[in-house]
Amino acid sequence: MSNIIVQKFGGTSVASPKRIEAVAKIVGQEIDSGNHVAVVVSAMAGETNRLIDLAKKIQKKPDPREFDAVVSSGEQVSAALLAMSLKKKGYNSRSYNAFQMGFKTDSSFGRARIRKVSEEILQDVLEKNIVPVITGFQGFDDENNITTLGRGGSDTSAVAIAVSLNAKECQIYTDVDGVFTTDPNIYDKARKLDHLTYEEMLELSSLGAKVLQIRSVEFASKYKLPLRVLSSFGSNGGTLINSNDNLEEAVVSGIAFTSNEAKITIRKVPDIPGVAAKILSPISDAGIEVDVIVQNVASDNTTDFTFTVHKDFADETSKILEKLRKELGSGEIEVDLDICKVSVVGNGMKSHAGVASKMFGALADEAINIEMISTSEIKISVVLEEKYKELAVRTLHDAFELDKN
Amino acid sequence: MSNIIVQKFGGTSVASPKRIEAVAKIVGQEIDSGNHVAVVVSAMAGETNRLIDLAKKIQKKPDPREFDAVVSSGEQVSAALLAMSLKKKGYNSRSYNAFQMGFKTDSSFGRARIRKVSEEILQDVLEKNIVPVITGFQGFDDENNITTLGRGGSDTSAVAIAVSLNAKECQIYTDVDGVFTTDPNIYDKARKLDHLTYEEMLELSSLGAKVLQIRSVEFASKYKLPLRVLSSFGSNGGTLINSNDNLEEAVVSGIAFTSNEAKITIRKVPDIPGVAAKILSPISDAGIEVDVIVQNVASDNTTDFTFTVHKDFADETSKILEKLRKELGSGEIEVDLDICKVSVVGNGMKSHAGVASKMFGALADEAINIEMISTSEIKISVVLEEKYKELAVRTLHDAFELDKN
Repeated sequence: MSNIIVQKFGGTSVASPKRIEAVAKIVGQEIDSGNHVAVVVSAMAGETNRLIDLAKKIQKKPDPREFDAVVSSGEQVSAALLAMSLKKKGYNSRSYNAFQMGFKTDSSFGRARIRKVSEEILQDVLEKNIVPVITGFQGFDDENNITTLGRGGSDTSAVAIAVSLNAKECQIYTDVDGVFTTDPNIYDKARKLDHLTYEEMLELSSLGAKVLQIRSVEFASKYKLPLRVLSSFGSNGGTLINSNDNLEEAVVSGIAFTSNEAKITIRKVPDIPGVAAKILSPISDAGIEVDVIVQNVASDNTTDFTFTVHKDFADETSKILEKLRKELGSGEIEVDLDICKVSVVGNGMKSHAGVASKMFGALADEAINIEMISTSEIKISVVLEEKYKELAVRTLHDAFELDKN
Repeated sequence: MSNIIVQKFGGTSVASPKRIEAVAKIVGQEIDSGNHVAVVVSAMAGETNRLIDLAKKIQKKPDPREFDAVVSSGEQVSAALLAMSLKKKGYNSRSYNAFQMGFKTDSSFGRARIRKVSEEILQDVLEKNIVPVITGFQGFDDENNITTLGRGGSDTSAVAIAVSLNAKECQIYTDVDGVFTTDPNIYDKARKLDHLTYEEMLELSSLGAKVLQIRSVEFASKYKLPLRVLSSFGSNGGTLINSNDNLEEAVVSGIAFTSNEAKITIRKVPDIPGVAAKILSPISDAGIEVDVIVQNVASDNTTDFTFTVHKDFADETSKILEKLRKELGSGEIEVDLDICKVSVVGNGMKSHAGVASKMFGALADEAINIEMISTSEIKISVVLEEKYKELAVRTLHDAFELDKN
């Protein structure tokens, strides 16, 4: 079967009976235009938080299996309500929960990985001209336990369903118009992007996280499934995310930023081979992800080793390093929570020199001091003092003329 | 496996995290006393109504399949929360929804009949010393559609599970202490009954309906499963309902009453054979249940035919009869909504004469006019003007000394 579109609607899109009827209209239009549609829904906005609160009132650290049974219930409600609304409009529709749809996962409660989505059930439903409305977020394991894919997992559910149906496109409806060149709350010249590659979207995650679960982008990228982010509150084509980087693209697509990292520095580490591994191994063993890493050798054959971790793990990281100090024979450990990371992202960078120098020059013109630098093929990140964040974002947005199409 | 107790907790019993912890304590005590316990729960009080409201905002007459998917979600939450609470207290517990428990029904959405409860799953769970907390109310059919047993269906779920486990007893926890001789709101001398037979409980349904779904009593009766109604807010043994009528029982157990019937009279029906069937067939064909029926032949060879139906169907019934009038050659049709039915119920009546005369005498002493009479082996019902209801209940309660043990 061809002409299949998967449409996913987030919590704000199905927040009330009225919103659900608006969603039914969007789905109906897609069907009327000649496509087969499979729908995936999140719980009504606020519902999952209500359920989490309930669970935490019973157990501060809720039992993972039972927690998933509690928090997955909201999707069943919104799916059935949307199916009702579609029936009311004359479309043959049915809701399906994970079990009914054969949405198998492993047994990692709270962060389950998808094993298999039953194409047979899906194909059968679509061939009968039924519009399936499928619960996002939830799955079930080999022992019929209910699992969940983790916060925002409905996007990943939708992509998995789209992949198994070999859909033309997976549309992620949300409450914003698409992905922007930067956060419009920080800079009002931010412009909606019509198109991005998967890689750009992944690098823009700090902007996109509010829009789209990153895991779903990785998943879509793996299967070359076109993803489209758009608003259920009236849209203008949204942002298409695919692997097409042959178009005449802008050099830079957007400016991402985050304040949730901490900078950790170990002073005067003896510069001997293997020292980086010695420092980072116990940290990764503790399950802590390290982001930007910089190592500079000083003249006295010692090095200042600096890296960033998520702020939540700053304490734990510093404790691990304190234990290492003697062994390493190193100096002080410094933790700086007062930093931000600002990144320039763009597929066009690959073939354009000079992005880095333009970026550093623009920041220098504003007297913004760069503390760390990290580069990849399509991203250049700088770590700055937190206070410079907004200024840096606006400066770079202007420097790369992102307000212009 | 012997020593199995099924405990069912209604919506008010699991209305809040605090209440759920109180329930976990009750379950824990039963386990500590050496029994295996399977638990069945309703949705948290108010939740099912919230879900019904949501569905009706989308569709005034909600699609039955989708409606069941919506309204059954509350039980999954309360079951998982209770399992968490039991785990917190150190008991190995797991929640199970209908699908996980193999709770099969037919496909009559909204009023599904139970087909099968998987003993294998239940036995396996209990043998592993896991306390199963099972969703009441819900089931699933051969096509994996979610079904519900109808309002109050959790009691029936509990009985079905108790029967399939061959449990010693099925305990229905609610917010009242048990079944009373009459409604304490009507007469403060009402006394909690320690024991009733299934038949008495069924006849006392108008009292018991607030406590126990009647269908669950029929089910328990069929399998001779002892049922116990008791309060989760601190109890005193509650009311045991079983088939034992050999005990030295009181003649009369309780006074039931209802105001939800209407009296329909067709005047001057020619008294020819088969006329009762002619009148009642089209009514039963319309799915309307007839309760009390009285037919008196007058001297002119016509009869006044009178019966009661639920008030909700009074209009429809009267319309059906209007159509019949010509065919029957009968007189006026009268509808009286201003009536009540008061019943004296007791297994002891079977072997004691004089209950009827005592009842009629007591009502006559208070100058209460009896409009209709209906008798069964263990019940005598009278239809009265609505205004006499409270007086009749108190008078009969005193006459049969129900306040004394």
